[in-house]
Amino acid sequence: MNAEIIAVGSELLTPRRVDTNSLWLTDQLNALGVEVILKTIVGDDRRRIEEMFSAALQRSEIVILSGGLGPTEDDVTRDAVAAALRRPLVFRQEICDGIEQRFRRMGRTMSEINKRQAFVIEGADVLPNDRGTAPGLWLAAGGKLVLMLPGPPNELKGVFERQCRPRLERLLPPLAIRTLQLRVAGMPESDVDQRIAPVYTQYANPVTTILAAPGDIQIHLRARCPTAEEAERLVEELGVKIRELLGSSVYSGNGDPLEAVVGRLLRERGATLSVAESCTGGGLAERITSVPGSSDYFMGGFLVYGDEMKEALLGVDPHLLRTETAVSESAAIAMAAGARLRTGSTFTLSVTGIAGPDGVGETPPGVVFIALADASTARARRFQFPGDRARVRALAAQTAMDMLRRRLLD
Amino acid sequence: MNAEIIAVGSELLTPRRVDTNSLWLTDQLNALGVEVILKTIVGDDRRRIEEMFSAALQRSEIVILSGGLGPTEDDVTRDAVAAALRRPLVFRQEICDGIEQRFRRMGRTMSEINKRQAFVIEGADVLPNDRGTAPGLWLAAGGKLVLMLPGPPNELKGVFERQCRPRLERLLPPLAIRTLQLRVAGMPESDVDQRIAPVYTQYANPVTTILAAPGDIQIHLRARCPTAEEAERLVEELGVKIRELLGSSVYSGNGDPLEAVVGRLLRERGATLSVAESCTGGGLAERITSVPGSSDYFMGGFLVYGDEMKEALLGVDPHLLRTETAVSESAAIAMAAGARLRTGSTFTLSVTGIAGPDGVGETPPGVVFIALADASTARARRFQFPGDRARVRALAAQTAMDMLRRRLLD
Repeated sequence: MNAEIIAVGSELLTPRRVDTNSLWLTDQLNALGVEVILKTIVGDDRRRIEEMFSAALQRSEIVILSGGLGPTEDDVTRDAVAAALRRPLVFRQEICDGIEQRFRRMGRTMSEINKRQAFVIEGADVLPNDRGTAPGLWLAAGGKLVLMLPGPPNELKGVFERQCRPRLERLLPPLAIRTLQLRVAGMPESDVDQRIAPVYTQYANPVTTILAAPGDIQIHLRARCPTAEEAERLVEELGVKIRELLGSSVYSGNGDPLEAVVGRLLRERGATLSVAESCTGGGLAERITSVPGSSDYFMGGFLVYGDEMKEALLGVDPHLLRTETAVSESAAIAMAAGARLRTGSTFTLSVTGIAGPDGVGETPPGVVFIALADASTARARRFQFPGDRARVRALAAQTAMDMLRRRLLD
Repeated sequence: MNAEIIAVGSELLTPRRVDTNSLWLTDQLNALGVEVILKTIVGDDRRRIEEMFSAALQRSEIVILSGGLGPTEDDVTRDAVAAALRRPLVFRQEICDGIEQRFRRMGRTMSEINKRQAFVIEGADVLPNDRGTAPGLWLAAGGKLVLMLPGPPNELKGVFERQCRPRLERLLPPLAIRTLQLRVAGMPESDVDQRIAPVYTQYANPVTTILAAPGDIQIHLRARCPTAEEAERLVEELGVKIRELLGSSVYSGNGDPLEAVVGRLLRERGATLSVAESCTGGGLAERITSVPGSSDYFMGGFLVYGDEMKEALLGVDPHLLRTETAVSESAAIAMAAGARLRTGSTFTLSVTGIAGPDGVGETPPGVVFIALADASTARARRFQFPGDRARVRALAAQTAMDMLRRRLLD
């Protein structure tokens, strides 16, 4: 079955706004076995919406319109669809009452213009919207389905999930979807793809999608089968093969980010962590503490941007900093050891390097030393990360967490 | 003059890929005085591209197609447009030679399939592409303009900038553009809009666009006039009026982010900064150090996640933490004072609060105390930030920097 999506809103025709609703809707529709064959983005122009909608209804079994259901003169989606279908708009008192109640709950009075939202295309089912005033509409017309959804993403998602998906599931042939999301650290995308392409290209089902962020590759598998067992078996089968090829570089089998995986490992082992950050400037700790409950294992740490602070806060030997510089294996180890001593944590990660854009002396930007210390040892590794300042910092934080993950798994 | 954009590529109909070329193209076209009235996203389907292109040619003076110019069987934009215009494709030896040379320079041999890219719609001008093998095409047909551009963003930009823009500038009436980008901290979007709407709505030119991020409002002004002087005068005139209404909440008049503005103020005053972060977990320092050269004024700081670390690293009184808790005015001030003492910085910012998702005891998530200390004083303020964990942390970092900015301006 084919669908198309018409996103309504003049702001979506400016250089700064992109229609993201259609991505989410496509994901939902694909999961129901529906393909999206066309997307249109049109302004708040009644005649043009009518024209695009009429053409879409010729081509596709399902037409979804998003946006233009608000109370203002600009909101013309209802009128345009009604005109295209040659159906009248009828006033529904119970919708008006609902909107009025909503305003009252917020201690406000409904404006006269909100009454526009109580007009419904004849024959349409009203899809309640508990996150806003604009209800959605569901309409069967000449063997085709028309869905009209509010534009704000959280309202669109709420109405689709609670109202449209259950209805579509009843209408469409059953199709079970199973997904698997592997995440990989410490390998470039091209290496990952080269290693696993010979395997995943043998499967048309599950479909494999690879997404790359700095130091972080996501592999999405999605199987669609008549039964859940079959879909489950297929994603498992391909998942196991991919895991075999990538080994311990796969850090997550459920889509969790690296900071969540490392946090879980620390908590399981009753271990704690501190950090000493130079070039990442807090970015490593920021990632670690983005996980709710990270206070269970994250103690704290030190931001030591200049040599002076490395000496004063962490007791790094000034002689070492003079002879080997702060961007060296010895400095990284001294930073980690100094922070561990002062916090008493089980593990300490330290990062020192040159984020750029300029190098320092002979050392080019992108050179970063990362050390990991525990009660008995402290070891550092040297990296040369590619990219600009932001990328070098992101790669350094990601790599530091991956070093700890591998240590915790040993 | 009106334009529409047809983005070609089946990958743009998946849940994970969004057409960003059209945003960039819209910006370019608007700057030339051309409005984009419709955007279509279509798969690699010859019949459907032909259908959408024919309809677009009826509606708009300029039709731009992006993508589908590559060498494979999937690349059918040329064929579809030729069919719609009923023009033949003709082989152009010089294009073929160019592609062959390109391959030779990279030490490779041209494949037979690349010859497809040397077929050109009769009557079209070839737009050289120095970043890839697919040339663009420029075609005048029945008083309309058709531009066919390669899909990879860097190739599309190269071909448009070097080939299309100069041609369009010659064709279109001259128009000078001047822009002004103000940034505002410490005010919600609705307050900003309420205050300045009575002024900017009086101007159809410049066009005003407001973008909101957590704690950060951007106001873009864009004037289009026959002369540069006139455009300059208009953005200045409206800019001054808006600044008067928003006062010191405007922190940037050139689009610079808050961390860059604060950094410049610190450098100008020869002042240094340290931080003591609890709930932001490094996010404040991460923002400050994202600016190249921030080592000139950023000394370092402390990540003190639990009470234990606040005592051990910053000397915060355990009795104070027991009686008033770590999320209190006194704790924030003690943290700032402790960090300043240990780093010797001119200023210290401290942040302590509850990022969520859960509250602690009586204190709900979103409650954050921010203190600013210098040699003579330390003062804290209490905030109740809305939103989830990530938003609370982002707002806390932004607000802390804005407190320092206002202090530096005093």
